[in-house]
Amino acid sequence: MNHLPIPDKRIAVLSPVAWRTPPRQYGAWETVASNITEGLVARGWDVTLFATGDSVTSARLHAVVDLGYEENTAVDPKVAEYLHISEVFEHAPQFDLIHSHYDFMALTYSRLVNTPVLTTIHGFSSQKIMPVYQKYREGYFVSISDADRAPGLNYLATVYNGINLALYPFRESGGDALIFLGRIHPDKGAHLAIELARRSGRQLIIAGIIQDKVYFREKLKPHIDDHDIRYIGPVGVAEKNELFASACALIHLNTIPERFGLVMAEANAAGVPVIAMDLGSCREVIKDGHTGFLVKNLDGAVRALDRLSEIDRRVCRQRVEQNFSIKTMVEAYEQVYSKIFDLEKIKHS
Amino acid sequence: MNHLPIPDKRIAVLSPVAWRTPPRQYGAWETVASNITEGLVARGWDVTLFATGDSVTSARLHAVVDLGYEENTAVDPKVAEYLHISEVFEHAPQFDLIHSHYDFMALTYSRLVNTPVLTTIHGFSSQKIMPVYQKYREGYFVSISDADRAPGLNYLATVYNGINLALYPFRESGGDALIFLGRIHPDKGAHLAIELARRSGRQLIIAGIIQDKVYFREKLKPHIDDHDIRYIGPVGVAEKNELFASACALIHLNTIPERFGLVMAEANAAGVPVIAMDLGSCREVIKDGHTGFLVKNLDGAVRALDRLSEIDRRVCRQRVEQNFSIKTMVEAYEQVYSKIFDLEKIKHS
Repeated sequence: MNHLPIPDKRIAVLSPVAWRTPPRQYGAWETVASNITEGLVARGWDVTLFATGDSVTSARLHAVVDLGYEENTAVDPKVAEYLHISEVFEHAPQFDLIHSHYDFMALTYSRLVNTPVLTTIHGFSSQKIMPVYQKYREGYFVSISDADRAPGLNYLATVYNGINLALYPFRESGGDALIFLGRIHPDKGAHLAIELARRSGRQLIIAGIIQDKVYFREKLKPHIDDHDIRYIGPVGVAEKNELFASACALIHLNTIPERFGLVMAEANAAGVPVIAMDLGSCREVIKDGHTGFLVKNLDGAVRALDRLSEIDRRVCRQRVEQNFSIKTMVEAYEQVYSKIFDLEKIKHS
Repeated sequence: MNHLPIPDKRIAVLSPVAWRTPPRQYGAWETVASNITEGLVARGWDVTLFATGDSVTSARLHAVVDLGYEENTAVDPKVAEYLHISEVFEHAPQFDLIHSHYDFMALTYSRLVNTPVLTTIHGFSSQKIMPVYQKYREGYFVSISDADRAPGLNYLATVYNGINLALYPFRESGGDALIFLGRIHPDKGAHLAIELARRSGRQLIIAGIIQDKVYFREKLKPHIDDHDIRYIGPVGVAEKNELFASACALIHLNTIPERFGLVMAEANAAGVPVIAMDLGSCREVIKDGHTGFLVKNLDGAVRALDRLSEIDRRVCRQRVEQNFSIKTMVEAYEQVYSKIFDLEKIKHS
């Protein structure tokens, strides 16, 4: 494509209000919304970020919800979402584009304004939300991996999530531990990481918020001994880097198709190879045999551990720089925005 | 006021989609939305009812949600609400007024359309929803009792809920039982009805959906013996009338302020006196010493039982006919609509 970015347009970025933007720890959607916002501002765009009041941004911040509803129980999530989402649409005439990271809910306001709405779909949480996407399928959509697409939607592109490379400095060498970083939920497969550690006789450090308490209590807790298998709770960027420093590999044995897998890019950025289940987007993020290994089951993961020395840590870093940096992501979104402005011009001519 | 109804206007009535409109059994908001819709149609208005697809109405039915989410677990309530509420606003230009029964959520779409929106507030479920009402306080609101008002909102009137009198035929005499009709929840005080039955040595029949399972199991179930204290589950109109026929009084010892209390009007319509806690709207629905008794505590309720013979059952019926009929309600709403059309004319002149 030969479109050029048009940085005189005014962009509203609608971030979720579950967490602060960027989140203190967990919060993938808010992380990406923040990275896009900061990347656009750095490249001269006029951006207004709709996010919680305690959000940190170099863009203009517009907030009607003080604190994320996951961080402040005084706020009802339903109330926060309705107030927050409607706010950006009430200000629609002030923007040339609304870039929504707010799932199906924001779509239901999109036909009531003239400003075009681009929705980055960060994942389909349930089949039950599909009727909304089907109704608004003619809208503008971006998928975060080729794997995570629903049929029939008007996708303009796949734009991979970009991470802030400065936050994850490259290390020439790592440690001996396996690490797991992600939500404690069966989908993310921490129990498989434990089994891999057991079978390979390696240490495992698990980090992440506990989303499924029963799963944690029944499948993880009995194995945690504070030595071979450790659980250290949710972690921020600094602790993530400490984890990366101690790691020989990030273990990402997801049990359902991954939508993108931000943490795989973060690990690779630090030079840490990833052993990932070959489900969903993993094969788009990890290049098998180059930045880690894609496996089909636990046996495959055991075999992959023996081949870790084949991975050149610098290649891991380079691949992230080329494909999963904020710059790459923002440039791709600029192409998408350009396309939308062209389409809108035709629509109204 | 000397406004006349203007039945050439097109009205959209937005009913909830928790249940069918009208509901098969429980569903006070859907009941009232249905009564308003049918009453308006009967008086010549052009009405479109936005409700579940299985709803029954003489108005035009517009439905995007097939079945109520309380009756069909395949539907996600959040998805149903977003799809349903946005639908009426997407069709706003086809209407002169949107009459919303959909709580705070519908308000968040109201500023995106030119059609005026009237919200009947059927109750404030929580302090946490108040920020939405505060934001949209300049809108048009109706309260269902003088008691159930929030400060600062632009109330145009209190319009009491009207019931379909034909459904609740008057009976010259009743039976000996006490009856309780309502949600099984501490707010509605079924446990106090049981205590009253015990202390007065009378039979009690309890009917209603179980909303608080723990409360039912711990506070009600131990007393239910299928003779003196019976629980018969949720009931429809026919069973309600059977209950009224067997009753000497409806026991309504609510523990928090009542918002309106539809069931009190229904009992009175059938000629059944009501013993009600003097909290919230009860003193607006029940005329103390004439259509029942307002009490401050259980002792008061025991004393009231001894005075039931003072109540003239025909007075109960007459008071409902005069104040809580569909006709009375619809005429009051016609006045409110008129006022809105006048205000809008001024706004746009």
